[in-house]
Amino acid sequence: MANITSATANADGRIAVVGTGLVGSGWAIVFARAGLAVSLYDAVPGAAERARALIGERLGDLEAVGLVEDPAAIHARVVVADSLADALSGALYVQESVLERVDVKTALMSEIDAVIGPETWVGSSSSGIGASLFTAHVACRARCLVAHPLNPPYLAPIVELVPAPWTAPETVRGVRGLMERVGQSPVEMTREAEGFILNRLQGVLLMEAWRLVEQGLATAEDVDKTVSQGLGLRWAFMGPFETIDLNAPGGVADYARRLGGLYQSIAASTDQHRTWDEPLIATVEAQRRAVLPAAELSARSAWRDRRLMALALHKREMEAADMKEESR
Amino acid sequence: MANITSATANADGRIAVVGTGLVGSGWAIVFARAGLAVSLYDAVPGAAERARALIGERLGDLEAVGLVEDPAAIHARVVVADSLADALSGALYVQESVLERVDVKTALMSEIDAVIGPETWVGSSSSGIGASLFTAHVACRARCLVAHPLNPPYLAPIVELVPAPWTAPETVRGVRGLMERVGQSPVEMTREAEGFILNRLQGVLLMEAWRLVEQGLATAEDVDKTVSQGLGLRWAFMGPFETIDLNAPGGVADYARRLGGLYQSIAASTDQHRTWDEPLIATVEAQRRAVLPAAELSARSAWRDRRLMALALHKREMEAADMKEESR
Repeated sequence: MANITSATANADGRIAVVGTGLVGSGWAIVFARAGLAVSLYDAVPGAAERARALIGERLGDLEAVGLVEDPAAIHARVVVADSLADALSGALYVQESVLERVDVKTALMSEIDAVIGPETWVGSSSSGIGASLFTAHVACRARCLVAHPLNPPYLAPIVELVPAPWTAPETVRGVRGLMERVGQSPVEMTREAEGFILNRLQGVLLMEAWRLVEQGLATAEDVDKTVSQGLGLRWAFMGPFETIDLNAPGGVADYARRLGGLYQSIAASTDQHRTWDEPLIATVEAQRRAVLPAAELSARSAWRDRRLMALALHKREMEAADMKEESR
Repeated sequence: MANITSATANADGRIAVVGTGLVGSGWAIVFARAGLAVSLYDAVPGAAERARALIGERLGDLEAVGLVEDPAAIHARVVVADSLADALSGALYVQESVLERVDVKTALMSEIDAVIGPETWVGSSSSGIGASLFTAHVACRARCLVAHPLNPPYLAPIVELVPAPWTAPETVRGVRGLMERVGQSPVEMTREAEGFILNRLQGVLLMEAWRLVEQGLATAEDVDKTVSQGLGLRWAFMGPFETIDLNAPGGVADYARRLGGLYQSIAASTDQHRTWDEPLIATVEAQRRAVLPAAELSARSAWRDRRLMALALHKREMEAADMKEESR
């Protein structure tokens, strides 16, 4: 990890995780797993200690399925800081994961600005609020951006890097390099847009999913099966552009000329359906509860986490096999 | 398989695959793998024989990764018919997979109608054309519907069942039962809609993907990574409704009330971007060719097929473990 620390002469390469809920705890695992020292800080007394215990449990789960090898060593790299200043002291990078509210993030940025070193970067886990809405007032704003993960970040590699208008290009480059070195897959937006990339893509698909139910064309369960037994199989390892690039003899341009008209026509038919209103919510809620009673939500979430871990292991094995193939 | 054949006293349970290109060949594997006898027919002389040889090769690939056990026995259940009448003789079900053109499908349906038994169902692999556009004129039309697979159907279980206005409910029920018994995952539309479920969902996501590139917000490569390293991980085993049902403490209704507004706002911002025009096609084509040169398209398609096979095996193992867990 020497190539990370050498980028900032005044930092010792420590990562500060500020806000230690599920997202912050997940980030701590990402950085500690990669060999970096992590300091946890949370304004709520006792929260960082509870997070550190939870991190230990999660590392045990990851070891059990073969996703990490030495959980005790990883856990030992995660420490609880006495104060925000203590957490940020010598930090290369701060991952902020507090409540998704402009006022909360704005106040925290003032506190961070007061104690931050001259070369430390700050990434916010914000899933929807752009950094421009809570960093305008701080001196360190050129070193701030959004670094939005999918939960949990130690299983889903994606990180969306979204600069505010005043974020320095070197900040994006530096955080991108850090994320790549700790094994994440950073993507970059050139500027802020509501929902960033991930929730824009999820949002339009969800909008059509709700519309199919609203129009009585299909049940929520059948919409789900269409993805989990069909579309989602390719999307688990290829994006939408690569998928269509391989689905016409002449690649993506060939595909676009053949099918662009169909998709424009489908899109035109979706314009008037943007409601998510209460009667529709009640319909979908009833259909989901018939498939999964409310009492089983948390057990099913645990199932989802087991499946995500198994899929992460599967993908790691596949990618190792691909690399072996390429190096022949 | 006795429960399939007993549903139709006049049929011996044979499946007729009419049109033996990639899609028809894939269907033959699905039915033969499940123990059913399959007759291949293609109007192009020699095409069915070539398909049968290709099916043998594919079965070998599937055996190599552990997805089928006795490829020779499966292959032996697939025979080439001398004529359309021969293929349909005693057939429980006809899977039609000819060229995606209304005139071609209309003419073929007249031929099928002339030789079909009184209880045989006809499913079309049509990915976009509703059965109402090519079955209005035939006597057997109450027994016709669309049964649209994702390619290849022996790796992607999804089958979209889409009735024409005159399709009998018993036809939908019968074909659904058949598809379930051969291991596919049927979903039903209540009526025809352009793109059915699968391509409507893919279409809106693609539309937003193209828009992100058009607006210069992200590259095609980063859009792809956002799916393959993020969104697509959950969608490989959970649909969009189950995903959000597990993403808010109170389930899907709670999620909708929290985030419906965001998604409506995102949707409203996408209305004016429906072009897929030539300059944009050129931009995406250039970005894709930088990632994957045209000369490597077919090698990458072979990679995709290997990954799909491995994912199918992974999912089969996971589902077997889930069932063992449930039966405890």
